[in-house]
Amino acid sequence: MPEEKSFHMTPGDFRRHGHAVVDWIADYYARMESFPVLSQVKPGEIRASLPPAPPQQGEPFAALLGDVEKLILPGITHWQSPNFFAYFPSNNSGPSILGDLLASGLGVQGMLWATSPACTEVETHVLDWLVGMLGLPEKFLSTRSGGGVIQDTASSASLCALLAARERATDFASNQHGCDGKLVAYTSQQAHSSIEKAVMVAGIGSKNLRLVAVDENFALRPEALARQIGEDRRAGLTPCFVCATIGTTSSNAMDPIAEIGRICREQQLWLHVDAAMSGTAALCPEFRHTHAGVELADSYAFNPHKWMFTNFDCDCFYVADRATLIKTLSILPEYLKNRATESGSVFDYRDWQVQLGRRFRALKLWFVIRHYGTEGLQHHIREHVRLAQEFASWVKQDAEFELAAPAPLNLVCFRHKGGDEANQTIMERLNRSGDLFLTHTRLDGKITLRMSIGQSHTQERHVARAWQRIQEEAGKL
Amino acid sequence: MPEEKSFHMTPGDFRRHGHAVVDWIADYYARMESFPVLSQVKPGEIRASLPPAPPQQGEPFAALLGDVEKLILPGITHWQSPNFFAYFPSNNSGPSILGDLLASGLGVQGMLWATSPACTEVETHVLDWLVGMLGLPEKFLSTRSGGGVIQDTASSASLCALLAARERATDFASNQHGCDGKLVAYTSQQAHSSIEKAVMVAGIGSKNLRLVAVDENFALRPEALARQIGEDRRAGLTPCFVCATIGTTSSNAMDPIAEIGRICREQQLWLHVDAAMSGTAALCPEFRHTHAGVELADSYAFNPHKWMFTNFDCDCFYVADRATLIKTLSILPEYLKNRATESGSVFDYRDWQVQLGRRFRALKLWFVIRHYGTEGLQHHIREHVRLAQEFASWVKQDAEFELAAPAPLNLVCFRHKGGDEANQTIMERLNRSGDLFLTHTRLDGKITLRMSIGQSHTQERHVARAWQRIQEEAGKL
Repeated sequence: MPEEKSFHMTPGDFRRHGHAVVDWIADYYARMESFPVLSQVKPGEIRASLPPAPPQQGEPFAALLGDVEKLILPGITHWQSPNFFAYFPSNNSGPSILGDLLASGLGVQGMLWATSPACTEVETHVLDWLVGMLGLPEKFLSTRSGGGVIQDTASSASLCALLAARERATDFASNQHGCDGKLVAYTSQQAHSSIEKAVMVAGIGSKNLRLVAVDENFALRPEALARQIGEDRRAGLTPCFVCATIGTTSSNAMDPIAEIGRICREQQLWLHVDAAMSGTAALCPEFRHTHAGVELADSYAFNPHKWMFTNFDCDCFYVADRATLIKTLSILPEYLKNRATESGSVFDYRDWQVQLGRRFRALKLWFVIRHYGTEGLQHHIREHVRLAQEFASWVKQDAEFELAAPAPLNLVCFRHKGGDEANQTIMERLNRSGDLFLTHTRLDGKITLRMSIGQSHTQERHVARAWQRIQEEAGKL
Repeated sequence: MPEEKSFHMTPGDFRRHGHAVVDWIADYYARMESFPVLSQVKPGEIRASLPPAPPQQGEPFAALLGDVEKLILPGITHWQSPNFFAYFPSNNSGPSILGDLLASGLGVQGMLWATSPACTEVETHVLDWLVGMLGLPEKFLSTRSGGGVIQDTASSASLCALLAARERATDFASNQHGCDGKLVAYTSQQAHSSIEKAVMVAGIGSKNLRLVAVDENFALRPEALARQIGEDRRAGLTPCFVCATIGTTSSNAMDPIAEIGRICREQQLWLHVDAAMSGTAALCPEFRHTHAGVELADSYAFNPHKWMFTNFDCDCFYVADRATLIKTLSILPEYLKNRATESGSVFDYRDWQVQLGRRFRALKLWFVIRHYGTEGLQHHIREHVRLAQEFASWVKQDAEFELAAPAPLNLVCFRHKGGDEANQTIMERLNRSGDLFLTHTRLDGKITLRMSIGQSHTQERHVARAWQRIQEEAGKL
């Protein structure tokens, strides 16, 4: 039969345009430092440059790629710039981009083992690798009672942990009858906002989330947690879940996991450990002290898409007791039934997450680990920590600045001694200059600058230049 | 300063390996028909072929790509094969893969407008385009009171719609105090399992989800819905949410949106319309009758990653009243505060979804629309529907087979008249042969085969060959 009329890109064009896109990306990284890190556009400016109506006829690919250059780039904040020190790292790498490209090309759905067995099995396997690489407890291995799964974000991991905790505490009655307003969850005042969001989503309610007090280093105070749990029990409530953080977003504070874990064991509460950014540090034995006590956790999450050279999205979520997670999230309609699922010998990752569909995200993670090897990953993590510690030492030596919190790894919280307005001014001038991008938090009520070091191509010269620019702007106050 | 020691892929290597991956993908599509569509591996087989421990030293890229060929391909079920007729389409295209590659390369976070303005503005713009392209009501436009956002999946869209409905019905008290066990949601017996999952996640409870009876065409019966709402109100419960489906997963049934919408208006219930697969059909004016009444919906979702040549993940979710959605999902910690957000003149899409992080998914959607143009998209959708209708006519003409449900678009539900075992046998033999892949459902209690037509490269010859193979296997019974 003759080939039918088609608007699809021809195989030859795909090769040609694909090579052009690869080259464009390589060029983009090569000229990265020529762009202002923070996009300088005003609200609505990008949109106003786009054609108001979609095209009736298709356009040549060169026009698309040309518009990325012309219309999109001005509206990009360059997260991959070596001068990006804002928020958290979101570092990227060649093997990750190419692994993800292969996943796009294969275009498989991994909702069930049967819908592409390799998608499930590589994921299980690589997540088991990471248990060893990070020195996590063996109970998180899929070959024991636990297992790992890739979630999109730490927000989703926290939500799934909370849901499993909710169901365990109510003997799976909440799933059936809904929440009753009596469940209580705990985290620190410094925990990520996603915990509050999860508590709202899960029908527990933000008033039933206790934000436990922190110590002078912004770490959760275990005795305050124990006291609060006691009070809640006496009030007839049902404590069910604690989220402890290894490396808070605000200041990289390290909650004392071991002490929190002992309380959770005594009180039979689910302990989730959120190590979204700092989990990666555990690749290096010398930083594993941050994880002391993690063997007491019921679940654990860290994001290779933050600090392990893997592009978004890729959060690794582990549970010690997969049966509870699966029982919490499993639904099996007729149209998804199949012999492999019925045999019970496979994981269907649909039952480990909120969504049904999922892409082959393990491919990029597998590529990253194999490209760098443990050695390469450790090297770059150590280097980021070294640069942050060096930056912290410069801050300490400057009489006009002070450290605002301990800097255990790759985030330095610091401030100019001139007060909130001075810090706000320094930050805004730096960001407007385009030379670097950094963001702020508030610690002890004071505006605090955050120097987050972890982009793939950040080297000593970038950090040194950033410090020079900070001092310059301070000098102009 | 000298360049530091680095394990990163060099720019030259990225170009070289990137070209190789692009070529590998082009070759994969060229030889797609040589693979068995359904992977033939046994549980554990792929995993057993992988090295038990991660490498200490990095490996050359050629080894990675070689292992994709050797170890991964046997474990792939080829969703992009023109002989893939299972589940639902998940069709892919060159412009989508390359748009997604650019998003990976740029590596930006779109959680806030400020974290990359183009990421937000292109998304808002393209989703406004689609309102016009699909003939959706103007209230879904961002320039009115509504707006669109890309979610990962229809599951997440349904969950967000349900959460907004929950909060609207309780004056935002559920977010604060948790659910009280009185909220009730409604959908049909034939709705997707994700609705039940959303009800469980949201703390409403599966027993408070009413699965309303369907008619002989598997469409929700509006009078049964109205009756059930009345009963629940009399019992002191709080009806809050209805999910109606345009094209159910099981049989492509079309719920009567207009009648359901009128009930929802009278009863002040949130109406969410799930058009995950079939929404794309509305690109063609002649198929828009399936959407009659959609102007009464509070929210609407369809998945370009199903039937619009866009690789996973890409669900377009619209609300008529964005203020309610944002109020439901917004949390603003200090470390995310910025002047653009405070000005109120921008969308921060973090407030439109459960997760915080998000990638630049609009790029691939923008590329798809611009590459195909409305004309090209319409052409291929019409062709898929034509092929399905042709297949349905062959079934009707064969005395051994029967249609099991109306086939309004691109899904044909049919069965051999020999009963469940005959159909199960035909399906398993076909799938084991590797010649094609189809899956089943159960309608009127009977095993029913589903012929879903919508992969990008499916042509008449593939459908004809599938029918021939089905008849062959039936002949061997």
